Amino acid sequence: MPLIVTGTVGIDSVYTPHGHAEKVLGGSCTYFAAAASFYGPVRLVAAVGGDFDQQYRDVFKAFPNIDTAGLEVRPRSKTFAWGGKYHANMNSRETLYTELGVLTEPPPAIPAAYKGSEFVFLANTHPGVQLDLLGQFPQRRLAVADTMDLWINSARAELVALLKKVDGVVLNYDEAELFTRKNNPVTAARHMLADHGGTNGALKFVVVKKGEHGCLFVHKDGVAALPAYPAEQVVDPTGAGDTFAGGMMGYIAQQGAEGRLKNPASFEIVQQALAHGTVVASFNIESFTLSRLQTLKKGELDARLREFSKMVRV
Amino acid sequence: MPLIVTGTVGIDSVYTPHGHAEKVLGGSCTYFAAAASFYGPVRLVAAVGGDFDQQYRDVFKAFPNIDTAGLEVRPRSKTFAWGGKYHANMNSRETLYTELGVLTEPPPAIPAAYKGSEFVFLANTHPGVQLDLLGQFPQRRLAVADTMDLWINSARAELVALLKKVDGVVLNYDEAELFTRKNNPVTAARHMLADHGGTNGALKFVVVKKGEHGCLFVHKDGVAALPAYPAEQVVDPTGAGDTFAGGMMGYIAQQGAEGRLKNPASFEIVQQALAHGTVVASFNIESFTLSRLQTLKKGELDARLREFSKMVRV
Repeated sequence: MPLIVTGTVGIDSVYTPHGHAEKVLGGSCTYFAAAASFYGPVRLVAAVGGDFDQQYRDVFKAFPNIDTAGLEVRPRSKTFAWGGKYHANMNSRETLYTELGVLTEPPPAIPAAYKGSEFVFLANTHPGVQLDLLGQFPQRRLAVADTMDLWINSARAELVALLKKVDGVVLNYDEAELFTRKNNPVTAARHMLADHGGTNGALKFVVVKKGEHGCLFVHKDGVAALPAYPAEQVVDPTGAGDTFAGGMMGYIAQQGAEGRLKNPASFEIVQQALAHGTVVASFNIESFTLSRLQTLKKGELDARLREFSKMVRV
Repeated sequence: MPLIVTGTVGIDSVYTPHGHAEKVLGGSCTYFAAAASFYGPVRLVAAVGGDFDQQYRDVFKAFPNIDTAGLEVRPRSKTFAWGGKYHANMNSRETLYTELGVLTEPPPAIPAAYKGSEFVFLANTHPGVQLDLLGQFPQRRLAVADTMDLWINSARAELVALLKKVDGVVLNYDEAELFTRKNNPVTAARHMLADHGGTNGALKFVVVKKGEHGCLFVHKDGVAALPAYPAEQVVDPTGAGDTFAGGMMGYIAQQGAEGRLKNPASFEIVQQALAHGTVVASFNIESFTLSRLQTLKKGELDARLREFSKMVRV
């Protein structure tokens, strides 16, 4: 049954060479869910504060497949807020401020109706919290986690424990190197699989995200690689990684819903899912916040996927 | 008839975190020709000095498809020599020394027997020299040039004149940005096509090389992208760009020799050629100088191409 995502819903202020957007809807859960919603229903679990105004709720309404019953409002708390500035080439950014707000409090409760979720994406947060959330989905068929350098440096033991329990992990190029101390991304991913998969745990695949350079996919049964969609209109890269993961998981969950999924973590299905993630993400970066995804039609997505397929044909 | 390459044959000293190789055969022509030789005959035009010992000639003997009749020996001159050091992640390098030697003298003469060459690759050198060489191949069906930041900065007018006369150009990501002042590689390439192709010149495609991140291909009739082959064994990246170009041009010339080539500069043929270049280059970086290509079998090349094809399948 439906895909679920846990993580952050936040309020972003983003500055790029193309302009800026202040106090707009953001957060890993938000971007993931918006992307995944093109493939089917997606449940969202996150906490927000009393400052989470109607304007933000209205954005979610543009995505009828997003189930926001798991959005827990804490009137006396503040919503997670992030401000970032992108540099001229759009490939690097600096964080201007981070106001953790509700993220310093206990994580949101999983609604009882969500406990049967089969496709689980644990968007980036403390790996101890991710582990706790994961345990609340006993019927999961596929669980994938995101992480970041902060946790690699500050919560390594919990991250290691998490990696042994999920089927897959997505992380950035630099993070794969940081975590393994291997300066080749394929080698780094192979080490992660050896240490946390096979007889050592459940990990079956690692997706190394490279931003404008695409992704590497190292699975226990093979290796693949994809370029990014060659985008010219890059207005705001915020959420690129989360929409990539959303498209990827959305596609897999859709295959499951349509009864076409024998093994949700197989090399073949995840490889195809990466192309969907790539294409959804390529739309997201075309404008600030979720603006582009709010108007995106499934037909446009399908057309770009066909175009992308021709672009990488060998 | 055969492919021809003009450029440098040199003596390299290379230092990497994996070891070093001193005074070994190098140069753009050398790497290009070795890669192209897996697809058919390739003619090489370059000048060397009296210090070009038998040991270097012997390396060429490992590649029976390379015709070295165009290797002009100048006993009183010195061969071009380059020393470079790669940093820990193998993605950046510094030049330790450059001894231009014969490169400060007039370029080599094109043997009369070579004047009918149909597939011409102008490896990196001063664009004024490239223009002069190009004019000596009146029967060319496809001409492609490489260039570098040095000429973009110091010989822009000649480079512009060259781009209007070749069918394609290969250059690095940073160089595309430097040349056009556009910080998106697709946009940069489109500007190059607009300025030097169509009604403004002969340029039909731009290949933007991104090293370990693969390449972008912007053609008047479409855009494509390929990741690099996900290599784990990267011992010496020297010659990666030249072997990439060699595999690309070698494949196109082979199609021509086999009578399967209507339009040598078409989107479809060059797109397929890029995969061949990618795969040959992935072997070259597995060892110092030409060692890996000296022992490479065509069957290994074909097998990796099939593997690569599956890796990028969408």
